[in-house]
Amino acid sequence: MKNTIGNLFTVTQFGESHGEAIGVVLDGVPAGLEIDMEALNYQMYIRKPKGTISTQRHEADEVRFVSGVFNGKTTGSPCCIIIENGAQHSKDYESLKEVARPSHADYAAEVKYNGFQDYRGGGHFSGRLTAPIVAAGAIAIQLLKQKGIVLATHVAQLHHITDELFSDNQDECLKQINMINEVEFALINQDRKEEMIACIDQARMNLDAVGGILETCVLGMPAGVGEPNFDSIESRISHAVFSVGAVKGIEFGLGFGFKDKYSSEVNDEFEIVNGKVVTKTNNNAGINGGITNGMPIKFKTVVKPTPSIAKQQNSINFKTNENVHLEINGRHDPAIIHRARVVIDSMVAITLVDCLIERFGITWFQEGIQCKED
Amino acid sequence: MKNTIGNLFTVTQFGESHGEAIGVVLDGVPAGLEIDMEALNYQMYIRKPKGTISTQRHEADEVRFVSGVFNGKTTGSPCCIIIENGAQHSKDYESLKEVARPSHADYAAEVKYNGFQDYRGGGHFSGRLTAPIVAAGAIAIQLLKQKGIVLATHVAQLHHITDELFSDNQDECLKQINMINEVEFALINQDRKEEMIACIDQARMNLDAVGGILETCVLGMPAGVGEPNFDSIESRISHAVFSVGAVKGIEFGLGFGFKDKYSSEVNDEFEIVNGKVVTKTNNNAGINGGITNGMPIKFKTVVKPTPSIAKQQNSINFKTNENVHLEINGRHDPAIIHRARVVIDSMVAITLVDCLIERFGITWFQEGIQCKED
Amino acid sequence: MKNTIGNLFTVTQFGESHGEAIGVVLDGVPAGLEIDMEALNYQMYIRKPKGTISTQRHEADEVRFVSGVFNGKTTGSPCCIIIENGAQHSKDYESLKEVARPSHADYAAEVKYNGFQDYRGGGHFSGRLTAPIVAAGAIAIQLLKQKGIVLATHVAQLHHITDELFSDNQDECLKQINMINEVEFALINQDRKEEMIACIDQARMNLDAVGGILETCVLGMPAGVGEPNFDSIESRISHAVFSVGAVKGIEFGLGFGFKDKYSSEVNDEFEIVNGKVVTKTNNNAGINGGITNGMPIKFKTVVKPTPSIAKQQNSINFKTNENVHLEINGRHDPAIIHRARVVIDSMVAITLVDCLIERFGITWFQEGIQCKED
Amino acid sequence: MKNTIGNLFTVTQFGESHGEAIGVVLDGVPAGLEIDMEALNYQMYIRKPKGTISTQRHEADEVRFVSGVFNGKTTGSPCCIIIENGAQHSKDYESLKEVARPSHADYAAEVKYNGFQDYRGGGHFSGRLTAPIVAAGAIAIQLLKQKGIVLATHVAQLHHITDELFSDNQDECLKQINMINEVEFALINQDRKEEMIACIDQARMNLDAVGGILETCVLGMPAGVGEPNFDSIESRISHAVFSVGAVKGIEFGLGFGFKDKYSSEVNDEFEIVNGKVVTKTNNNAGINGGITNGMPIKFKTVVKPTPSIAKQQNSINFKTNENVHLEINGRHDPAIIHRARVVIDSMVAITLVDCLIERFGITWFQEGIQCKED
Repeated sequence: MKNTIGNLFTVTQFGESHGEAIGVVLDGVPAGLEIDMEALNYQMYIRKPKGTISTQRHEADEVRFVSGVFNGKTTGSPCCIIIENGAQHSKDYESLKEVARPSHADYAAEVKYNGFQDYRGGGHFSGRLTAPIVAAGAIAIQLLKQKGIVLATHVAQLHHITDELFSDNQDECLKQINMINEVEFALINQDRKEEMIACIDQARMNLDAVGGILETCVLGMPAGVGEPNFDSIESRISHAVFSVGAVKGIEFGLGFGFKDKYSSEVNDEFEIVNGKVVTKTNNNAGINGGITNGMPIKFKTVVKPTPSIAKQQNSINFKTNENVHLEINGRHDPAIIHRARVVIDSMVAITLVDCLIERFGITWFQEGIQCKED
Repeated sequence: MKNTIGNLFTVTQFGESHGEAIGVVLDGVPAGLEIDMEALNYQMYIRKPKGTISTQRHEADEVRFVSGVFNGKTTGSPCCIIIENGAQHSKDYESLKEVARPSHADYAAEVKYNGFQDYRGGGHFSGRLTAPIVAAGAIAIQLLKQKGIVLATHVAQLHHITDELFSDNQDECLKQINMINEVEFALINQDRKEEMIACIDQARMNLDAVGGILETCVLGMPAGVGEPNFDSIESRISHAVFSVGAVKGIEFGLGFGFKDKYSSEVNDEFEIVNGKVVTKTNNNAGINGGITNGMPIKFKTVVKPTPSIAKQQNSINFKTNENVHLEINGRHDPAIIHRARVVIDSMVAITLVDCLIERFGITWFQEGIQCKED
Repeated sequence: MKNTIGNLFTVTQFGESHGEAIGVVLDGVPAGLEIDMEALNYQMYIRKPKGTISTQRHEADEVRFVSGVFNGKTTGSPCCIIIENGAQHSKDYESLKEVARPSHADYAAEVKYNGFQDYRGGGHFSGRLTAPIVAAGAIAIQLLKQKGIVLATHVAQLHHITDELFSDNQDECLKQINMINEVEFALINQDRKEEMIACIDQARMNLDAVGGILETCVLGMPAGVGEPNFDSIESRISHAVFSVGAVKGIEFGLGFGFKDKYSSEVNDEFEIVNGKVVTKTNNNAGINGGITNGMPIKFKTVVKPTPSIAKQQNSINFKTNENVHLEINGRHDPAIIHRARVVIDSMVAITLVDCLIERFGITWFQEGIQCKED
Repeated sequence: MKNTIGNLFTVTQFGESHGEAIGVVLDGVPAGLEIDMEALNYQMYIRKPKGTISTQRHEADEVRFVSGVFNGKTTGSPCCIIIENGAQHSKDYESLKEVARPSHADYAAEVKYNGFQDYRGGGHFSGRLTAPIVAAGAIAIQLLKQKGIVLATHVAQLHHITDELFSDNQDECLKQINMINEVEFALINQDRKEEMIACIDQARMNLDAVGGILETCVLGMPAGVGEPNFDSIESRISHAVFSVGAVKGIEFGLGFGFKDKYSSEVNDEFEIVNGKVVTKTNNNAGINGGITNGMPIKFKTVVKPTPSIAKQQNSINFKTNENVHLEINGRHDPAIIHRARVVIDSMVAITLVDCLIERFGITWFQEGIQCKED
C-alpha cells in the first residue's frame, strides 16, 4: 500500500531529503507504553553518520513526537514522528536536476512522476528517510523486548572482510545480540573493526564506495506466528527488508547454501530438550511453512555499495535525451552498511510486532506492558 | 492479508492436499479476456509430476472455472478456479499425525492451529496448493503478454550442476525466454538436462532429495512502475516468491555478488541507444529505488531440497512430547525445482499485473485486450 | 478491496446467478470450531424463498465446504463454501441481454465490464450471491455466540405496516432476539405477520414489489472495540451492510431522529448499575466516538422494493442506444426484506468478529471455543 | 485499517485536540498538481468556527505541507499536512479527566486504551481532527474538478428548519452546487439563514446544542465506477462519512423514503436523451448495484447535536466507579452541522478519487492535469 506498511501495526512514511522534514506515522501502538527515549536515541545515534566513513551531512536528527504520546506514555492513537531537515545543501543537486545518477532512482522517478519529483538529494528515495523508521523501529524493538524477544544485526561481511556469524548456541547467541546492541560498529568479532573502517576509508579516498552483508538474528519469537503461503514470515520480512534502499538480496538460514545439499544433510530434526521442542540444526531459520517454530529467526541481506560516488561516470540527461558525463558532488557515504543495520532491525521489529498483534491481539501487548494507570 | 495477495488484482487461496479440492479466487481480472486454455493447460502440464523424478501422486489437475467466465471470456467478476483432489492416499499420513516431519510445517501448524490442522499430506501447507496458482498465473501471464511483457524461469543450478544464465543481450534473452517456455525441463542449455535428471533420480534412489537455484527474467516492463520504499518492486516480488514453500532466498540482479564490489564496478550507467534509455549493465535488475527503469527484471531464488524423504530421520511426537524415529512413507518429490519454475512465473506475473493496474488502471488492460463485444 | 471484505476475518465472494456455482472463501476462522450445521442450515432456510411471497426459483442451496474443515472442525485454513446453481432459467434473460432493467446494475455493469458481464439473472450482482454469505455469517454468528454476543434482525416496517421495536430493556431485548431467531417471518409482534404477508402477496398480484425497514440489535459486545474516525464501528457496519444489494440507507440508534433534538434531550447519560457501566438511554446505539461502550448496538436499514417487476416499464437498449419498453419475465421476489434479514445478520456478524480479532487476537476465539484436541 | 483510509489514494490521520499538532498524510497524489491554495484555504475558512454559533476556540489553522510539494506542485510522494494547535485551554479538561461526558468517547476510550488516552478536549476523537481532513479534501476536490466532477453539501435541515433540496434538473443543480460553494452558510435558499442562525444561537444560550441533516450532491461522475457488493459506492461513501464524529445515519437518494413505496413508483427508468443515457428519476442516487450509472450521486447524512453542552448532566467517574453530576466547561459548538459540510465534501471527494484511480490508474489524473514540466 504505497507508503504504508503493516496490517495492524502500521508505518506510513513521508518526506524528502531536502524538504522541510521527514517522518512517519506509527499506528497501532499499544497504549501505555513509556517510550524508552534513551534506547530510541541510541538507535538514532547508531544510524547517524560518524567520522570519515560516512557522509559529511550532519543532521541533528531530533525526534519529535507530534502526537500519540501524553504524559510520556503512548496513548494508543497514531504517533506522528517528525525529524526536521536542517543541513541541506540543495545547490549541490542543481547540476543533477536533469541527469540520471547511475543505479539511482532519478530516471525511474522522472518517468513515474512525470518530471515533478523532488530531485534534490534523492528526494523521497533518499536513505535519509530511514531516520524516522529507526525511531519507529525503536518502539517496536521495545515492545518485543517486553515480551522477551530480542534481535540484532551485524556486518557479516564488508567488501572482502568477514565477521563471525551468530552462534547456533542460543545462550551464546543472546550474548552476541546484547553485545552488538551496545557497540557502535556492529561486529561479533570487534577485532575486524579497524580493517573494515580502513576499507571504507580507502573506498572514500578512491572516490568510490563499498557494500557487504548484514546478518540478523531474532531470539525468543513464540512458535505459531505467521501465515502459510502468501503471508509467510519470510514474505513479510523480505517485503519489509527490501524496502531499505540498497538491499538487493535476502536469504533465510542456510539460504543459497541449500542449492547443492541433500535433504538428509540439511533437514532440521526436531528433538525435545528439557521439555522444550527445538531443532538440532536451524537451517530453516526458525520458520517452517512460513510459520515460526520457536527457533531463532536468522537471515542475511546483501547491501550494495552506495551508488553515489565522486568518480566520473557516464549517464544521460533525461530532459534533453543526451549522453553525458557525470561527477556527483555533494556529501555521500562511502558505505552505509554499518548504519543500515539499525534500519534492518527496525523494519524487522515493526513487521514482527504486526504479526504478533495479528495473532494475540493488541491487548496482549497492552496487558503485557503495563497495569492500568494508577 | 493471510490467504489473499495483491491490492487490485488479487488471489485468494484455499484447500488442503487431501481435502476435496484446492483452488483460488482470482479477482480484478479485466473483462473480455478470452482465456487461452491451451497455454493455461500447458503451464499446468509443466507443473505436473512426470516420470521418476517427481512424486508418484498423479492428479488429473483439471482446471474448472466455477465463476467469472461467460461465453469463453472473463466477465470482470472474480474467477473461482477449482481443482478437485482425486488421488489422495491419506492413510500414508496416519502415522505422521502426531509426528513433526523435519523442516516441515507440522509442528508450527500444531501450535498455530491448536492441533486442528489437516495433517494429511501437509494440508494447507502442501505444494499441491500451487496448482491453482499456476492456473491463475497463466491468466496473468496472458495479460502481460498482450502488453508485450514476457517472462520465464529456468533451473540455473540443480545441486552441483549449473545451467547458463539469461543473456544481457535483450534480443538473445527474448529467444531464451521463448525457448524455455516451450520445453519441459527448463534449461537454457538443454545439454545439461540428462545430467540433472540423473542427479534427481540418484537422489530418489538414495531416499533423498535435491534443490537448486531458479533464475527468472521479465522483459518488456515499462519504466515507472512500483513504489519507493515499502512497496518497491523487490518488496512486492519477494513477498510473492517467498510464498512458494521451498524458497529460502532471493537476489535481484547481481544480488549477493554486490558484497565485495566497488560502486564504480557495479553501477549501471545509463545511455541513450536508438533514442531509448537503457543501462549498459543491469546489475540492479531493472529496478532503481524500487521502481522499474525499463530494463529486464532478473532475480534468482534458491529452492531448498524437498524435506520429505524416505530416509530415516529423528524427530518428535508433539502429542506425547517424545523423541521418535521417523520414516516418511507416501509419495514424494526427489526434487521440485523443475516444477516450481512455473509457480515462480505465476506469482511474479500476478504481482506485476497488480502493479500495472495500480499505475494504469484496469481500463488499460481492458482497452488493450479487446474491442467492445460486437 | 473489491470482492473481499475484512482485515483478519475475511470473506471473498464469487459467482454469478446463472453460473455453475456461487460461493465464498472465509479466511481467518479460528481453528477447532465444530461448525453447528443445524444452525447454519436453519439460516439458509430462512433466506430461502418460500410460498408465494418470494421468487419461484427454488434452489437446493446445499452448502459444501470444499476446504477448511477436517473431522467436522475448522482447521484454521480458509473455508471455501460452495453452493451449486441448479435451477437457472437462463432463457428468461435472453431478451434482457441488451436492455437495462430500471434500478438494476445492467447498464452500470455494461459500462464497467465493457459488455462482457454475465447478464443472466443479474450475474454477479444477483441477490443470489447472498446465499454463501449467509453460510459464512452462520459461522461468525456461532463464534460470537460462544463469546456471549447475540444478534437478530426483524422487519420493523413493511411498506406501511410496522412492527414493534427492540426493547430498551436488555433482558426483554434478549428474549426478543431469541424469539426472532426462531421464527420464519422475523417480527417482534407476530400478530402483524398475516397483514405483512398479504401486503407482499398483493404487490405480487399487482406485478409490483415492496420494501421496508429492518432493525438489527447486537447484545453483549464488550466495550472498547472499534477505532476512532476512519474505522468506527458505524463505518465498518455500514460498509458491510451497504454491500447488500437493496439497502439504500442506515441509521444507528436514534439516527435521523437526531435531526430536530437538543443535546439535552438525546445525550446518553452514563450511570453505574450493579457495578456495571451503562447508559440510561441508548440513542447512540452502543457506539461513542466509533468505539463500543458495551450497550446494545442497534441500527435500522431501509431495503428498497426489489426493482425486478413484471409491470411494463420504459428503458433503453444499451447496444442500439434506443428507448424501449420492457416487461421483465422470469421469477422475481415481490419482497426480499423478510429474507434479507439473515443477510444483514451475517454481514454484521462477520464484521464484528473481524473487529474482535483485531482487538483480542485470533487466540481469544481459539482459546474460548475449545480445549486442545484430545 | 485504523487511521488510514483508502486503497490507492489514502489518508492517514494523527493528532489530538490539545497535542502539539494535528495532521494527515495524503498518499497517492498524482504528481504535478499545482495545489490551489486559495481554494484550500477557503475550505479551511468554511470549517472554522465563526461568530457566536460556534466554539470560541479560535485556531489559526495554518496548513503546512511538510512534504510532497516542491516548487508549488505535488511531487507524487506523500503530502504530510500539519496544523499546529495553538489555542488549547487544557485546564478546562482537568475536571473531566475521570468523568465520561455523555455521548462522548471518553468511557469507550478509557476501556480501549486502558486509561492512557489523551483526555484533553476529546484527544484523538476531537472534531478538531477534521481540520487536516479538509485540507486533504481540498486537494481531492481539485482533482475531481479537473475531471469535470463537482460536489457540494448544504444544511438541508437544522433542528426544525428546512432548506430546499438539490434540484433533479442537472443544470439547475450545478448552479446550486456552485452557489453553495461560494457562501459561508451552506443553504440553497439563503432566506433560511437568519432563522437557522437564530436557532443555533438560542441553543447556545440555553446551554444546549442542535443538529440536523446535510444533503450532498456529486455531479459528473462517469458511469462504471465502484464495485459490486462489498465495495459498492454506497459502502465506500458510508464508510468515509461515518468516520465524521457526529454522523449517525446516511441515506442515498430516496433512502428511507423507499420503505413504503412500490417498485413501480420508484424504479428509475432509463432513457436516451440527446444520445446520452440518463434516468428519468434518480431515486437510486446515481448508483445501481454499487456502480455509478452517470447520474448525480446524492445522499443525506444526519448530524447529531454536539454532545458537549454546558447544562448539568448526570454521568460517572470511571476511575472511582461512582455516579456524578457534570457540567462541561470549556468552549463548545452549539452546532457543528454548518461547519461539517466541508468535512463531508472532503471525505466524499477523497473516496471518489480513490475509486477513480482504481479504475483509470493514477496516470489518468496525471495526464489529465498537466503537461510534462517544461
